[in-house]
Amino acid sequence: MSELHKPVIILVEPQMGENIGAAARAMLNFGLIELRLVNPRDGWPNERAVAMASRADIVLEGTKVFETSAEAIADLQHVYATTARPRDVIKKLVTPKAAAIELKELAAKEIKTGILFGKESVGLSRDDVTLADTIITVPLNPDFSSINLAQAVLLVGYEWFQTDATAPASVMLNEERPATKEELGHLFARIERELDNRGYFEPILNRKPVILKNMRNMFQRLSLMESDVRAFQGIVKGLSMKPKDKKNDGDNS
Amino acid sequence: MSELHKPVIILVEPQMGENIGAAARAMLNFGLIELRLVNPRDGWPNERAVAMASRADIVLEGTKVFETSAEAIADLQHVYATTARPRDVIKKLVTPKAAAIELKELAAKEIKTGILFGKESVGLSRDDVTLADTIITVPLNPDFSSINLAQAVLLVGYEWFQTDATAPASVMLNEERPATKEELGHLFARIERELDNRGYFEPILNRKPVILKNMRNMFQRLSLMESDVRAFQGIVKGLSMKPKDKKNDGDNS
Repeated sequence: MSELHKPVIILVEPQMGENIGAAARAMLNFGLIELRLVNPRDGWPNERAVAMASRADIVLEGTKVFETSAEAIADLQHVYATTARPRDVIKKLVTPKAAAIELKELAAKEIKTGILFGKESVGLSRDDVTLADTIITVPLNPDFSSINLAQAVLLVGYEWFQTDATAPASVMLNEERPATKEELGHLFARIERELDNRGYFEPILNRKPVILKNMRNMFQRLSLMESDVRAFQGIVKGLSMKPKDKKNDGDNS
Repeated sequence: MSELHKPVIILVEPQMGENIGAAARAMLNFGLIELRLVNPRDGWPNERAVAMASRADIVLEGTKVFETSAEAIADLQHVYATTARPRDVIKKLVTPKAAAIELKELAAKEIKTGILFGKESVGLSRDDVTLADTIITVPLNPDFSSINLAQAVLLVGYEWFQTDATAPASVMLNEERPATKEELGHLFARIERELDNRGYFEPILNRKPVILKNMRNMFQRLSLMESDVRAFQGIVKGLSMKPKDKKNDGDNS
């Protein structure tokens, strides 16, 4: 498998350099190379990470740093969020094993994937989970389910490495490709801007963040193709046009 | 399963207290309780082990120390040795997954089992491997196969815990139901009406049937839930409202 279609590992706001190093080592144990960091607490590069990586230099040397999770996944097409505590979002929830099978299938379709891991103390924020298409939850002892960051990376890498590259279970018709997170981001931004411009949120201003988050979750879950995003852009554009008949501007049912 | 028939984890001459603590934490993550140490370098108890165990106290409090590997496994009936480098001994070699299946089968027969892990720097000695019935080898990147002690314990524990797992590999969160075709029909009709009302199709009137059919196909393919249809109804309603600022009615990009 080319490096291009191995999953990218993204650590969001990691606190301890030791954990970044241990995660890099765990990655390389299973042939994963591409590590991204979102806003690491102690900056980058980090000596403690190097010490803990046990010569997984190839991973640390290529590590890129981003300011936000959204930027870190902008070029990816299918993103997983690892969390022990699924919030009340409607998303597909899979085990590391099921995720590994999916990741290999997605790679066979040349879809670029990534896996988000949250900070040591609290895991991923709700906003970060919202960015993802699918949630990975490790089956753990319910009485002791706090797992170390690098160990979560290890388990996901282990399952990925174990899973044989299989022929895709289904193939896309036509030359379609999934939308990138950036394309989805532009669509959200446009919908939000147009709704704002119409005062849609004014009577419900306190609920605006929740409504936008639910909307974003929904679009994430729909696995839109690039052509779908274009179709939605067209719909939004059309609906945002000025009505022909003043008496009829908007259906307020 | 009774504690009696869960596998015992045996660390042979562990060097760093941190690794003992991390191993204890990994054990409890997967419901394993019984830890034995053979001749730990820094003695026992060990403060660094406690610090790293993240409150896996039940494991550390019950940890027993032995002088030799032979004594540590004296009461066990089937013993595994973990090693990344199988020596020239003729023994059965299994993956962690295959070992997990065997361990559960042995437990069902009330056979007492244990798993030996070697010291950080060199792994198990040849003599220790000789004590075992079966060798466990973790599939690893051949170019980077040095794995941390606690992580080896983690992977074996993970597979052991998973083998029980009867939960479905993938579930949907929340009690959602798919939208009915009628609900979808109302949504299409509304979008078409609002687009018509804005003259969206006028410059492309000959393509209107094709555009509508593509849109309908897309919505069908997205497998919308009932709540998704409501969200889209909200978006359409909002976008159909009159813009607040005349200069800004519609983004014609």
